[in-house]
Amino acid sequence: MPHYTCLPVAGYAIRVAPGEKIDLREHDPARHDGLKREDALAALDRFQLELAELQEELYGAAQHSVLVVLQGLDASGKDGVIRRVMNCMSPQGVRVESFKVPTAEELAHDFLWRIHRVVPRKGMVGVFNRSHYEAVLVERVHNLVPKATWKKRYAQINAFEEVLRDGDTIVVKFFLHVSKSEQRKRFVEREQDPDKAWKLAVGDWTEREVWNENRRAYEDALSRCSTDAAPWYIVPADRKWFRDLAVCETLVQTLRAYREQWRDALREISRQRLAELAGITERV
Amino acid sequence: MPHYTCLPVAGYAIRVAPGEKIDLREHDPARHDGLKREDALAALDRFQLELAELQEELYGAAQHSVLVVLQGLDASGKDGVIRRVMNCMSPQGVRVESFKVPTAEELAHDFLWRIHRVVPRKGMVGVFNRSHYEAVLVERVHNLVPKATWKKRYAQINAFEEVLRDGDTIVVKFFLHVSKSEQRKRFVEREQDPDKAWKLAVGDWTEREVWNENRRAYEDALSRCSTDAAPWYIVPADRKWFRDLAVCETLVQTLRAYREQWRDALREISRQRLAELAGITERV
Repeated sequence: MPHYTCLPVAGYAIRVAPGEKIDLREHDPARHDGLKREDALAALDRFQLELAELQEELYGAAQHSVLVVLQGLDASGKDGVIRRVMNCMSPQGVRVESFKVPTAEELAHDFLWRIHRVVPRKGMVGVFNRSHYEAVLVERVHNLVPKATWKKRYAQINAFEEVLRDGDTIVVKFFLHVSKSEQRKRFVEREQDPDKAWKLAVGDWTEREVWNENRRAYEDALSRCSTDAAPWYIVPADRKWFRDLAVCETLVQTLRAYREQWRDALREISRQRLAELAGITERV
Repeated sequence: MPHYTCLPVAGYAIRVAPGEKIDLREHDPARHDGLKREDALAALDRFQLELAELQEELYGAAQHSVLVVLQGLDASGKDGVIRRVMNCMSPQGVRVESFKVPTAEELAHDFLWRIHRVVPRKGMVGVFNRSHYEAVLVERVHNLVPKATWKKRYAQINAFEEVLRDGDTIVVKFFLHVSKSEQRKRFVEREQDPDKAWKLAVGDWTEREVWNENRRAYEDALSRCSTDAAPWYIVPADRKWFRDLAVCETLVQTLRAYREQWRDALREISRQRLAELAGITERV
């Protein structure tokens, strides 16, 4: 099937080991491993070709679903990753779910209810723009729930994600790691571009006042909820082209492990279909 | 905003006038208006740039939703249009709904129930891979419901689509018109390519036995349900590159009519946001 040579994986995103204690100040958001922009874009093209093919095999075999969780502060590039990485796959096999401030109906349920009802079915790639992690991020940082409530949620999230994995969902979680100075630069750019100013949110600047609280909340989510069932990856996000490459490469690396299994399943489906067709004697 | 010159519209897809009586034998599925493949692909690129921009404005302004209905016989290219045309837009703003054989739950409701609950919200592009029209196509051709039932549905569909339009949904319906010989060619290709055989459906060949019944059912749907609120377009689909260009061009042409309105809305949002930001005196 491949119409290209598979690129080797460089590991641009950092996988958090289960139980590893993360200090985000030790991770450089501007890291780019000496890569040049043009080379990164060329590599991204190659990985996207492969990701598109893997998605088609996932879709056809329908043995697994894929859940991509995107988290990160404002202007860290969640929308950009969706627009520039995910669009290599057929829109038919990808469903993006954006989680905003919970509605009244959502608040009338437990914190995982609105999440669980939209997890991807087999064959599909679900992309979560924000996710259940907001329940241990914004809700913690802004005291929207008591500490006793959010403290229990780490284990509850791990149990939930294990259920997803046991239901044949491949879970990959990305934290887009942007620096405070790069975030400022992006806010100012939006403000000065009349075509982009509508993307500004009122809380953008005020949220920077709790930068360290947000950092610590992310550190706890990364440290406590990176499991074999659902690993977290830290993505340096100050350079958009490195961020996109790191996300795409990680997805390809993750899905490659299933390729042979999916191809076997597709060959089996093909065999069955051809056998059924052989029974049709007359073809108009 | 535009970083390109807008291409003029050639009208490659045929818009069915309200009340027009359609005879599909008068429409050539191989029509390509003398266009060459390379030129069509270049034009498609240009229209896709514009469609991507229009989608972003639709998303930001969130004043309308867009519903794209794709209908056509097996191998007419519904999946191909989704993969090759719709992927120019951010996956965040596009949601594809594929309607298969109704589930028990869906059959326990009226024929529009499963359709209505997944129409796109404002800002979004909904793409229906098959649709409520199956209720006057497969259900008619295979006598799944009495004639008295499907005959009433044309008016019911028109009333439903008028409600969508009045709810600010821009409805565009495409019939992908493939010839019987081209369909055969594509079936045989799938059968002979071990990487594509899994895409074969058992009913593919037998459905050709009711080719004329399907044609007449489509003719009635096109003739009775092309309205100002929700026009039908006939897309020559024997050449994939011409089909993709015709669909993309029609979408661009349809959405261009709203561009100024959306840009005004975005400018107003930008003004409000900047005014709110001006109130923040200290910026950390």
